Amino acid sequence: MTHSPVLLHSFQSQPPKHHSGQGAILEWIAAAHAQAEITLQKPTTDEAREAITRKYRKLVMRFGCSTDRIRSRNSALDDFTHTDWDRMRIFRLKEYPSGKPCGERSRFFREVSGLAFDQFYAEEADPPPVLIHVTCTGYVSPSGAQRLVAKRDWGQSTEVIHAYHMGCYASLPAIRMAAGFVERGKARVDIVHTELCTLHMDPTQHLPEQLVVQTLFADGVIRYSASRMGEGPPVANGLELIATREEIVPNTEDAMSWMVSDFGMLMTLSRKVPDHIRAGLGAFLDRLAATAGLTTAQLCEAALFAIHPGGPRIIDEIAEHLGLRPEQIQASNAILGDFGNMSSATLPHVWKAILEDGAVQPGTLIVSLAFGPGLTISGALLRKSA
Amino acid sequence: MTHSPVLLHSFQSQPPKHHSGQGAILEWIAAAHAQAEITLQKPTTDEAREAITRKYRKLVMRFGCSTDRIRSRNSALDDFTHTDWDRMRIFRLKEYPSGKPCGERSRFFREVSGLAFDQFYAEEADPPPVLIHVTCTGYVSPSGAQRLVAKRDWGQSTEVIHAYHMGCYASLPAIRMAAGFVERGKARVDIVHTELCTLHMDPTQHLPEQLVVQTLFADGVIRYSASRMGEGPPVANGLELIATREEIVPNTEDAMSWMVSDFGMLMTLSRKVPDHIRAGLGAFLDRLAATAGLTTAQLCEAALFAIHPGGPRIIDEIAEHLGLRPEQIQASNAILGDFGNMSSATLPHVWKAILEDGAVQPGTLIVSLAFGPGLTISGALLRKSA
Repeated sequence: MTHSPVLLHSFQSQPPKHHSGQGAILEWIAAAHAQAEITLQKPTTDEAREAITRKYRKLVMRFGCSTDRIRSRNSALDDFTHTDWDRMRIFRLKEYPSGKPCGERSRFFREVSGLAFDQFYAEEADPPPVLIHVTCTGYVSPSGAQRLVAKRDWGQSTEVIHAYHMGCYASLPAIRMAAGFVERGKARVDIVHTELCTLHMDPTQHLPEQLVVQTLFADGVIRYSASRMGEGPPVANGLELIATREEIVPNTEDAMSWMVSDFGMLMTLSRKVPDHIRAGLGAFLDRLAATAGLTTAQLCEAALFAIHPGGPRIIDEIAEHLGLRPEQIQASNAILGDFGNMSSATLPHVWKAILEDGAVQPGTLIVSLAFGPGLTISGALLRKSA
Repeated sequence: MTHSPVLLHSFQSQPPKHHSGQGAILEWIAAAHAQAEITLQKPTTDEAREAITRKYRKLVMRFGCSTDRIRSRNSALDDFTHTDWDRMRIFRLKEYPSGKPCGERSRFFREVSGLAFDQFYAEEADPPPVLIHVTCTGYVSPSGAQRLVAKRDWGQSTEVIHAYHMGCYASLPAIRMAAGFVERGKARVDIVHTELCTLHMDPTQHLPEQLVVQTLFADGVIRYSASRMGEGPPVANGLELIATREEIVPNTEDAMSWMVSDFGMLMTLSRKVPDHIRAGLGAFLDRLAATAGLTTAQLCEAALFAIHPGGPRIIDEIAEHLGLRPEQIQASNAILGDFGNMSSATLPHVWKAILEDGAVQPGTLIVSLAFGPGLTISGALLRKSA
């Protein structure tokens, strides 16, 4: 491969409207599951209603991600701040036990995603030559990216690309695309993730895997830029892209799925996902390391690991499997704890944290790993610039 | 820009299961609109039922795309071959006047899209280093592309990219991405379009713009490859990528939209779209031509025009506007006539027709134009290789 060095830089995150403690979120989700079943079963006595409420609270507290792993999460949706089901935008559970169908969720996504682009670029005079919009939680065209470009009359300067429906690992194909556009002469590629995962909850889905998903995922919005090192306006610091690699693990088609369904988007998640990842990871890392002339042992000794928290325990399991030290996964754990799994926006939050951490020395290598349907293992090797 | 020459080649199309004359399709659509209203209105007399049937037949025949512009279209869905609404997979209109909600449409897309990948690669031993799946009509992960790679154990050789939800012009961002990946050292990038537009009809949508959409769009499935000219296995002939350009027309956000809605995906389309395209096209072509050191006048004199048929009259209107001769738009008209608007799969069908037409001399320039939400005008300048 003949990469020129590409730098990822100028990270800015935008906290979605509501920041809530995980304990409060778990209570809300328990109440939503109970209300969904009350709407479906129409119990006629207080006892029956209370039994339903107790049952689903117990289930959510048992299988949901606990507060020792995730302290807080963000959501753009006002619905999560109260349990007055008649005042909900999506979770009007007395009429729609699953929440509203896809159209209203798309309209909400359009509003919030549009605002995110407006805010990110409010102070910015220079149009990016390429603007990549990454999401797997809302499909509306014109997108926030396209509407920004139309509004600001950047249409002749900015090409918009949608990198949609690649799931949690999508920052990695996005930076591969960005590197290709830089290679073809574009001076700067901006990447914006708007992930509104909480929008797709369906409280009639009570399976343990669904309770994990519902209590793990959160909203996240972040932007960053890719450009050739040393070109354009000086960049204070960034992450140099050294190598990328993406693989699909054989015979894992059924391990995980993500599709547009009747009431928003629906995920399925097998309990075997962590096993599949562990089984494939060593050889994957060997090949990723080799493209940079390194070995997995060298990376495990010296690199930081930016690991997408596909499940609540995946960071710990990988760290244990590879023999990593706590400081090597500190940023990944901190982002999971503060924000949960923000789908494709998660890894960029980890990159931002590493970049802004003064204790991380220039020259430090960063192994980035994320996972998604396929099963896909996607990775990149980055280096903190001087 | 520093492109190395990239060649598009090895086009293969795969006709969706059912090929129907436009006359028969118009009758089916008229019957579906009538049945949807009969389900909603519950008329109690034969007269009332017949009045509804007459009304919607008249509307569909008045506003639908007539048989003089579109002779036939393809669909993967058996539903369109009969009007026994109880036997439908999606259009079970006696229970669901809009057809079934999104989930069943996604499941059908998953099946058909999966089969398309299996068939395209059945005889192929060499995994493509990159496989770009393009669609705006079905969002299911693992995608057909990912499942193919998993099944064939190509996971270590093939990176899958989803280029989703960019609408009718998506072949152009796809080839820009492909060129970037080639530039970064990938020997071959395959691009597969699976567009099942007919899956998203909602026969309760009776507005004239919706009748145009419902009678214009069709299913289309096609693959092709991009690689550096002169590298890899010899290619009999192809289209050399000379220049690309994409612009968003200011203040046209509301002219066209495409989003996930309650009953499949919904398009809106303003009557002003052709005016916006005409207004922006001249200057757009000037800039596209200039990147190749040419002028619009030279292109209008010498090039063929591969024009996406965004509406039934757009090819003619552009030809008239630019003063093109009938042979310059012959392939575009032929594809529209035989297959309708297959969204992003359309332009690749036109490219294939031009490539296979022995009467088109090597060295012939091909201006490619397509349109979508934004409003986006996207273009490429290609040249038929020797």
